[in-house]
Order: sequence, then C-alpha cells, then structure tokens
Amino acid sequence: MDKNLLGTNVVTQIGILVHDIEATTRAYAEFFGVDVPEIIISDTVDKTNMEYKGKTSPARCRQSFFHVGGACMIELIEPDHEPSEWRDALNKNGEGVHHIAYEVEGTDEKIRLLEKNGMPLTQKGDYTGGRYAYIDSTADLKVMIELLENFKK
Amino acid sequence: MDKNLLGTNVVTQIGILVHDIEATTRAYAEFFGVDVPEIIISDTVDKTNMEYKGKTSPARCRQSFFHVGGACMIELIEPDHEPSEWRDALNKNGEGVHHIAYEVEGTDEKIRLLEKNGMPLTQKGDYTGGRYAYIDSTADLKVMIELLENFKK
Repeated sequence: MDKNLLGTNVVTQIGILVHDIEATTRAYAEFFGVDVPEIIISDTVDKTNMEYKGKTSPARCRQSFFHVGGACMIELIEPDHEPSEWRDALNKNGEGVHHIAYEVEGTDEKIRLLEKNGMPLTQKGDYTGGRYAYIDSTADLKVMIELLENFKK
Repeated sequence: MDKNLLGTNVVTQIGILVHDIEATTRAYAEFFGVDVPEIIISDTVDKTNMEYKGKTSPARCRQSFFHVGGACMIELIEPDHEPSEWRDALNKNGEGVHHIAYEVEGTDEKIRLLEKNGMPLTQKGDYTGGRYAYIDSTADLKVMIELLENFKK
C-alpha cells in the first residue's frame, strides 16, 4: 500500500451504533459527569446527497458527541429504517463500535486509493461544511473506517 | 452515577481483537505508512496474577500498538486459548473493537464504583509498571471499557 495513504494517523471519532440514542447519550453523560449534549438529526437527502451501495437513500440518523481527549470524540448514532450502512450494520452486528474516523483532504482521491487497496466504499454523503465516506476496511483492519473532510472556509 | 466517575474522559486505547496478529499488524503498518511494530507477549500468570471471572487463569495474549493521535493508541490483541475475556469475546463476536481504555488512578476503588453502577469487572491483571481491568459496560455504554493504571515511579 502507498505510504501514509490517508495523510494522517489521527483518530477523530469512534462511531458507536445504538438502538436508543436518548438512553445511551444519557448513560455517557452520566459516565463522564458532563451535561447531556444535544441530539442532532442528519440532513434530508436533498442536502446530504447520500448514497449507500451506489444508490441514493433518504436514510437519516440521530447523533450525539462526547469529547474524549485530543482531537477524538465518541459519536453515538441511531439510524432510521431506510437503507444505510448504519441500519444494516446495526441489524447484523447489534449495538457497538462501528467505525473509526480519520480527517482527510481530497475524499474522492482517498476513496479511489482505498478501493485499489481492497477497501471499498459503502456509503457517502454531505453535511454542512463537509462530507464523509464509510470504507469497508474490515478484512484488513478489523473495523470500518470513516473519512471525514471538513471544507476549509 | 457519581460525577466524573473515572476522573478522566480521555481515551488512551482502542482495543481490537484479532485472529492473526502478524497479518493485522502488517496491515495497520501499511495503512499508516509506518514500520511494523514489535509484537509483545503478555507475561506469565506468576507475574500477571490474571483473574478472569474471579478465577486465576494462565491466559496470555500477543499485542501490538499504533499511535493514533494525542494520548490514544490502537491496540491489537491476539489471545491464546486459555480462559480469558479476550478469547471468549473473540469466539462470540469475532474480530473487531473490543474495548475503549481510560487511564485511571486507584483501580480497586474504580472497580467498586463501577460495580455499584451496574458495570461488573470481568478480568484483571498486572503488567510491568501497572495494572488493568476490563469492565462489562456494554449494557449502558455499548462497548467494554478497560481501566489502565500506570504506577508512578
């Protein structure tokens, strides 16, 4: 594999799939002794342009975030029942860690490089100020990765 | 739950169970573009005093580590076939993220506090310079946690 493929080795999120975002957000807030953070709902597909397995999907999720040192956050994700990586993984594997995220530049190029190295894209989408892509790296890395790209202002 | 139970919210390790530590260590080294790190074998039970589900066990594991920003490392773990949290989790859930580690002081007190809050100890042991404990926090936090305590010199 090319040296330094992602251009980073800094984990910025640990993504955890959950069935009940309110309950698990409360549990983490109590565990860390912090205020319960806001639960965010992802944008509608006209804004996200979300694609799962190459097809547009209206899937949305609810999310909450906890700082866990340095650049890293725990991200809790409760998906809806439309087609998505989140829903399929939650149905298949149950609750738990789904991915580890790295912040990159040039997502499209990174996706191509990863696919060349046997790590295919499963889902991608936009959010205000950036975009994300899930990569099936489980064969090699034993966990999915997420590419996050926050556009420079 | 008590405020700030662990005394920290900093994740110091993401622990991943694997079947073949050589292959997965090579895959991560290639992915990050770094040299393949040394694979370490945990100490024998006379040094670890390892207990799993309240019973002494001679289980050992092989480990490798990758820095992933700030205080955080990815830890790869290949267990042997003696009784352990590692082996049971790998047999039950397959390869993947097993725990998130936090560095604490006063492990015994933290274990008691966590047990009072419905998060029981499953395994504990010593290593040169410190000790660890796995806590079954999956009901509340959807992932196991590890307490790591490195003794002050």
